Amino acid sequence: MNNKERPLILITNDDGVFAKGINTLTEIARSFGDVVVFAPDVVRSGMSNALTVHVPVVYSKLSEEEGLTIYSCTGTPTDCVKLACFALFRGRKPDLLLSGINHGSNASINVIYSGTMGAALEGCANRIPSVGFSLCDHAWDADFSNSKPYIKSIIGWVLENPLPENVCLNVNIPKGDVKGIKICRQALSNWQEDFELRQDKNGNHGYWMTGEFVNREPDAKDTDDWALNNGYVSIVPDTVDLTCKEQINVIKDWEFKIKID
Amino acid sequence: MNNKERPLILITNDDGVFAKGINTLTEIARSFGDVVVFAPDVVRSGMSNALTVHVPVVYSKLSEEEGLTIYSCTGTPTDCVKLACFALFRGRKPDLLLSGINHGSNASINVIYSGTMGAALEGCANRIPSVGFSLCDHAWDADFSNSKPYIKSIIGWVLENPLPENVCLNVNIPKGDVKGIKICRQALSNWQEDFELRQDKNGNHGYWMTGEFVNREPDAKDTDDWALNNGYVSIVPDTVDLTCKEQINVIKDWEFKIKID
Repeated sequence: MNNKERPLILITNDDGVFAKGINTLTEIARSFGDVVVFAPDVVRSGMSNALTVHVPVVYSKLSEEEGLTIYSCTGTPTDCVKLACFALFRGRKPDLLLSGINHGSNASINVIYSGTMGAALEGCANRIPSVGFSLCDHAWDADFSNSKPYIKSIIGWVLENPLPENVCLNVNIPKGDVKGIKICRQALSNWQEDFELRQDKNGNHGYWMTGEFVNREPDAKDTDDWALNNGYVSIVPDTVDLTCKEQINVIKDWEFKIKID
Repeated sequence: MNNKERPLILITNDDGVFAKGINTLTEIARSFGDVVVFAPDVVRSGMSNALTVHVPVVYSKLSEEEGLTIYSCTGTPTDCVKLACFALFRGRKPDLLLSGINHGSNASINVIYSGTMGAALEGCANRIPSVGFSLCDHAWDADFSNSKPYIKSIIGWVLENPLPENVCLNVNIPKGDVKGIKICRQALSNWQEDFELRQDKNGNHGYWMTGEFVNREPDAKDTDDWALNNGYVSIVPDTVDLTCKEQINVIKDWEFKIKID
């Protein structure tokens, strides 16, 4: 049972409940409140805000001790947030949702594919203060030690200072030494994909994606990609409102001609 | 082979290549250009911008005739766009990407879960003019006849007038009679989920999602949800840049205290 005076912190990720990143984040978060980890049972990377709609989702308790309960779930990161909040907590909102620490960058265009950020955006849609953390290192045994003071500082801040409505944070941390924190916008970028026709271990042929990242504004110093390339932690305030507000008035001037047959 | 003077139009969806909606969209699009349909082999709803990263993706040609080739693919809607553009077209950009017509609304918060809009956003990230169409009717045999004049008009417009950079269109069409078109912003909304522990056909227990949609600003006449509830087609200009630009300066004032141990 949670002590009502300590914040309730929900933690999830997309690398699965056994990843080093989520264990590091859990260890940091425990000093701030009672932690419930509710995360995919296996790696579910690149799941964006995907929902499981055609099969039932199952979860089970892996362990329970004072201030920490861990659940494993067959769903996507977004399913995990929904199940934890609506089935497990039955409407009690967590005081904070943390997602990650992802093994690999979720900066720039990667945010739209990221299951880690999918979970944070789901929290945001449900008006839970939500932060996604990612380290720019895909290695399974990535070294998170330089990340810890920054993550600790950001968690402490967000617990004491409310996030603006409809905003969650996309925090990316460079590999190696860290110079400080920069508040950024998302760099305009895309993946130039290449597909190789290859055989898998079982001899089946299929296309495997091997893309190359293209930053279309590498010199823009206010972007997340620039910050990371220059040794800074990037924080982008993200929203679930995809409306492009700068362009809505351009579109309002359009004149559609409708011809009903 | 495509006639070089006719636009190349790529069509995908998330209800699968055999859905009535994609066949209706294909029929409309053929009067504007040469059409390549490249869509999931089965229903892949709620896939957002999910990518297939752990297994190879396979596609095969289902049919070919003058001005229309149809492919079926084992991937997500976003995989379909990537494979069509980078493996099949080998870098030739389609002049237009159309996604849908989805059976069911993708307005308001639904946009973040939608595979239909995932595909349109993927097109947008790759700087292809992209439009997602959805009819507010989940039925498999939904009646698309009232949608046709609006879809025809929007396709004609977008082929002649460039979309602003980093913008794609989320077009939703009400069921039944249509009064006209409104350019809108996304309504602030969320799903209040409920989970039932149920048995599936095979006797397995699991949680099934049965949510209730909550529009947090039902009276806001500039939103997509209001337009649809009042008989109008809603067009929201969407972007893949999730940065909440209205709030970035608030966040820039934050002072993080970093304590390196």
